[in-house]
Amino acid sequence: MAAMEFELIERYFTGCGSERDDVVLGVGDDAAILSLPAGHELVVSTDTLVAGIHFFPDVDPCSLGHKALSVNLSDLAAMGARPAWVTLALTLPQVDEVWLAAFSQSFAALAHQHGVQLIGGDTTSGPLSITVQAMGFVEKGKAWQRDGAKLGDVIYVSGTLGDAGLALQAIKQQIVFPQALLARLISRLEKPTPRVAEALALSGLVNAAIDLSDGLLSDLGHILKASRVGAEIQLDALPLSSAFRACRQDKVAQQLSDECWQSLPLSAGDDYELCFTVGSENQHAVASTLAMHGFKAHCIGRIDNGSGLRCVQKNGKQYQTEQSGYEHFKGSV
Amino acid sequence: MAAMEFELIERYFTGCGSERDDVVLGVGDDAAILSLPAGHELVVSTDTLVAGIHFFPDVDPCSLGHKALSVNLSDLAAMGARPAWVTLALTLPQVDEVWLAAFSQSFAALAHQHGVQLIGGDTTSGPLSITVQAMGFVEKGKAWQRDGAKLGDVIYVSGTLGDAGLALQAIKQQIVFPQALLARLISRLEKPTPRVAEALALSGLVNAAIDLSDGLLSDLGHILKASRVGAEIQLDALPLSSAFRACRQDKVAQQLSDECWQSLPLSAGDDYELCFTVGSENQHAVASTLAMHGFKAHCIGRIDNGSGLRCVQKNGKQYQTEQSGYEHFKGSV
Repeated sequence: MAAMEFELIERYFTGCGSERDDVVLGVGDDAAILSLPAGHELVVSTDTLVAGIHFFPDVDPCSLGHKALSVNLSDLAAMGARPAWVTLALTLPQVDEVWLAAFSQSFAALAHQHGVQLIGGDTTSGPLSITVQAMGFVEKGKAWQRDGAKLGDVIYVSGTLGDAGLALQAIKQQIVFPQALLARLISRLEKPTPRVAEALALSGLVNAAIDLSDGLLSDLGHILKASRVGAEIQLDALPLSSAFRACRQDKVAQQLSDECWQSLPLSAGDDYELCFTVGSENQHAVASTLAMHGFKAHCIGRIDNGSGLRCVQKNGKQYQTEQSGYEHFKGSV
Repeated sequence: MAAMEFELIERYFTGCGSERDDVVLGVGDDAAILSLPAGHELVVSTDTLVAGIHFFPDVDPCSLGHKALSVNLSDLAAMGARPAWVTLALTLPQVDEVWLAAFSQSFAALAHQHGVQLIGGDTTSGPLSITVQAMGFVEKGKAWQRDGAKLGDVIYVSGTLGDAGLALQAIKQQIVFPQALLARLISRLEKPTPRVAEALALSGLVNAAIDLSDGLLSDLGHILKASRVGAEIQLDALPLSSAFRACRQDKVAQQLSDECWQSLPLSAGDDYELCFTVGSENQHAVASTLAMHGFKAHCIGRIDNGSGLRCVQKNGKQYQTEQSGYEHFKGSV
């Protein structure tokens, strides 16, 4: 790319997101200067999305702009932090103004929605890749960590599980679910909602949290390992969307095995819901906070001193699964 | 890459750099938590290096690890900021342990040298690319910006100019300079020294600064534009290394045109020296600070109210050049 093309690209990101008072100096110098509120700590998250690994190369750039920021805001939410600033390192094979306009608009819209300002980054030519770093802050000592789960804590998940994973299966296996249902699932895969508002509302009530990028078994497993505890979850308590349930009841459902339907909410990633644990003394406060804001989160189990993570079926028997991790699109596109 | 390979990669970066007291939570959760000293502002810089664009794909990984961090520390230095924390987003086509060991060791060595701790990042598979974000801090209101140059300011550059550009020419055109000289030049290209110590020592004495990544004409031009001033620089005042001068006097020098020799210190990038402007009231203090620490920086001209940047030759005539920018390796590898 020529210098002029870089300038063109940068124009698409000028004034991206909110205009914040705490940005002393934004884009355009060697570095940005930011003012952190007194009594707060800085929270920093970085994620890279690479074409062919984390997304299909021909994915709608509007979805990609949203997702690149969303996965990072989700990480901040999992710390109970308020997002504030973001940098974008964008590597592009060529200058495609239609692509750039769509990508930057959706990135900016989500940034604006969360009061986040783009304060720097880098544009380079090369194979399509996006690295976003989101920065936010949290009251000193109040961040949620993975190692904070305590015996007797109730385990919650926000939203619903398995939608993004089902969308991915549908795309990969070319399953023809009813169009309206499929669209809702694909939207969950391509435009996940970072649970920032939920996290901020629950400040002070949560012992440990993680966002579900790799799947419930894997991610809740991180909490258990870091907190040196076990947990039992009830499979029939896992929240499923109406789209997920409708697809399962559709005549094409049989294209996916029973095992697959069972494991999607447990093992599929990319839902970007929050999984968090709450001491029983705070359970009522959590319930009323969720109700007051109209936020959805369900109790799915409890932290205990047993071994690892145990999934209990409706009939009381333990469900065994081989799949405990999830590797996004790896090897699939 | 499989999950195990990601774990392997991450092991190479465990405990990378210094262990800082202000890192509340480092690598291993959804995000890092950092404590900024009271009365300070956060300074953030991001740079991406892509194989084939910013470096030769077969470059020594030891150089690459150094350079990826160095260019970001250089940006912080150009703000007068003290580096503290860094994230690394590393995209690798395959797991090569020899490569990883060399890359991570040189990255860690430079981080340690500057008291910087690696506090997060992301590892993905894909075409080789490295995005580093360096964070540091500066006393509130004391950061150096490009727009601070004032009429009458003296313009300084640290170190020497054109070494990295000459190394690049030698590699591209396969010019056989004497081995010892070439090695020194290539070291300047591949392992630039971020002028962090110089910047910290000169705190409070500088009006405007930038680091020389794209070449003096282009980068000083940014200061002039942002500060709405002009400048005159003396070509025979530009600091040249003994290696540069020896190569110029060598019999192979004729392989490069006079024009090329003349323009290298002006237009070639990748030197990562600091260019900064100082009010005449601080000139003595700058000189004594430089002398006390044994730092090298030379006066090369002065800020004025003339038009743009004028380069004056020894004979008093103005030197005209077409080249005012520099696009790294773009299209050259």
